[in-house]
Amino acid sequence: MPELIAEHACHGGVQRFYQHASTAIGLPMKFSVFVPPQAGASSGTSARLPALFYLAGLTCTEETFPIKAGAQRRAAELGLVLIAPDTSPRGAGVPGEADTWDFGVGAGFYVDATEEPWTHHYRMYSYILELRAAVQDFLPVDPQRVGIFGHSMGGHGALILALRNRGQFRSVSAFAPIAAPSRCPWGRKAFGGFLGADPSRWAQYDATLLMAALQTPFPGGILIDQGLSDKFLAEQLYPEAFEEACRQASQPLTLRRHEGYDHGYYFIQSFIEDHLRFHAAQLQA
Amino acid sequence: MPELIAEHACHGGVQRFYQHASTAIGLPMKFSVFVPPQAGASSGTSARLPALFYLAGLTCTEETFPIKAGAQRRAAELGLVLIAPDTSPRGAGVPGEADTWDFGVGAGFYVDATEEPWTHHYRMYSYILELRAAVQDFLPVDPQRVGIFGHSMGGHGALILALRNRGQFRSVSAFAPIAAPSRCPWGRKAFGGFLGADPSRWAQYDATLLMAALQTPFPGGILIDQGLSDKFLAEQLYPEAFEEACRQASQPLTLRRHEGYDHGYYFIQSFIEDHLRFHAAQLQA
Repeated sequence: MPELIAEHACHGGVQRFYQHASTAIGLPMKFSVFVPPQAGASSGTSARLPALFYLAGLTCTEETFPIKAGAQRRAAELGLVLIAPDTSPRGAGVPGEADTWDFGVGAGFYVDATEEPWTHHYRMYSYILELRAAVQDFLPVDPQRVGIFGHSMGGHGALILALRNRGQFRSVSAFAPIAAPSRCPWGRKAFGGFLGADPSRWAQYDATLLMAALQTPFPGGILIDQGLSDKFLAEQLYPEAFEEACRQASQPLTLRRHEGYDHGYYFIQSFIEDHLRFHAAQLQA
Repeated sequence: MPELIAEHACHGGVQRFYQHASTAIGLPMKFSVFVPPQAGASSGTSARLPALFYLAGLTCTEETFPIKAGAQRRAAELGLVLIAPDTSPRGAGVPGEADTWDFGVGAGFYVDATEEPWTHHYRMYSYILELRAAVQDFLPVDPQRVGIFGHSMGGHGALILALRNRGQFRSVSAFAPIAAPSRCPWGRKAFGGFLGADPSRWAQYDATLLMAALQTPFPGGILIDQGLSDKFLAEQLYPEAFEEACRQASQPLTLRRHEGYDHGYYFIQSFIEDHLRFHAAQLQA
């Protein structure tokens, strides 16, 4: 069972920080959980609530979302459990893993590395699924009602995890996702390092390519918010490629382009409540 | 004029970070400002809005409030400008100023130091008034409608600044303030260092002692929120002393004690909107 590291009363619920031994990663991992007041005073597992995973971006940790996104207030009203994992293994001891901010520590890219020396611990794709399967054992989460969203690298992670695990995630949205990683510098660096030089091995982790093979659309649609003053938009994000893939796959997509907004958490906090409502409407249906 | 360092679109308004040369401090100082959408697209000084100063606590900076408090959403609805200064001089070069977290750097205690070597730069009391007087020159602030609040050390700062400058601050509230600093370890250490060993020189910076000499009550009352799981409550904060002083001075006080809440920003974000509404009601009257 995960160890409870810290706990703070928040909006009538509780903001928690946990650590546990991850099988997928082979190292201790941390994650944060907001449990809304609807779980009841015990905060046990008797009341079963919908849950929403949030995957954070480059350089972030499990603390970024609860500190910066301003999500707890509306989650407390909607009765949503919010779960935010860390963004990479910590302490893997891979030489050079912390040398750059966009690959390695804080930058696991939600893939299972196949290449040495990364393959032993850098397995964030399997880790998110491991955590997804575990939460119902110690949190008041209804395993039938789980959604996922994320930001930037985490928006990429949310899209690929939802597209490849339809039974696990019923709703999906993203803030400024790396929507076509195979064609942008961040993605090529990460996929090349973790998965090897052959781009054919990258497609399973590329939301735009996965969308092209979509069998059944998400009935509730997909919501993406993108700031137009985001300095990474032109080179790294490619929302228009994902938009075109959705169109061809007949996947309803709401892609909102916001004048003046950048890539950071002042952008995210401005639209977080729309995402919480988007997921709650589907998870509570 | 202050130099604009960074600017982020946020909730239809803009979150800004400034730096300027402070006369009171004799060094560059940083502060943050949220300008709500009611200021208009130019964000000049044509529309004059009510403003609210937020003074942060020990170890904090001008970034703490905009990142952690979750205030912008409601401030955007209410049309409030939010101004958050840093908590001490930076780069004063006083020997030992960064040796402890509760005195010196990040811990200016909103007093004007009279003792060597602090007296040359550690003048946060005068600095807040300097910034208070300056904002109307470059922000869309109505100088007749300014309130102040803060947390912990900054709650102390907000109370003393409001009590001693009635014409400058029309409304005041606090989260877990150091309400009687002359009698707690944090306050005695800071006041002893900045003001000297004679406690009679501390009274002008002690909210509970100032309240005992109150001439005219704040007509809108004072709002204080205090968590009952705050680990600093018993030794450092003394809200009950301030409560008794208010009673004797016939100052209306709403002191809310919250079961389970601690001293941090998960507590503050839970009740921030009540404070924004409390100030807006008085500043917009």
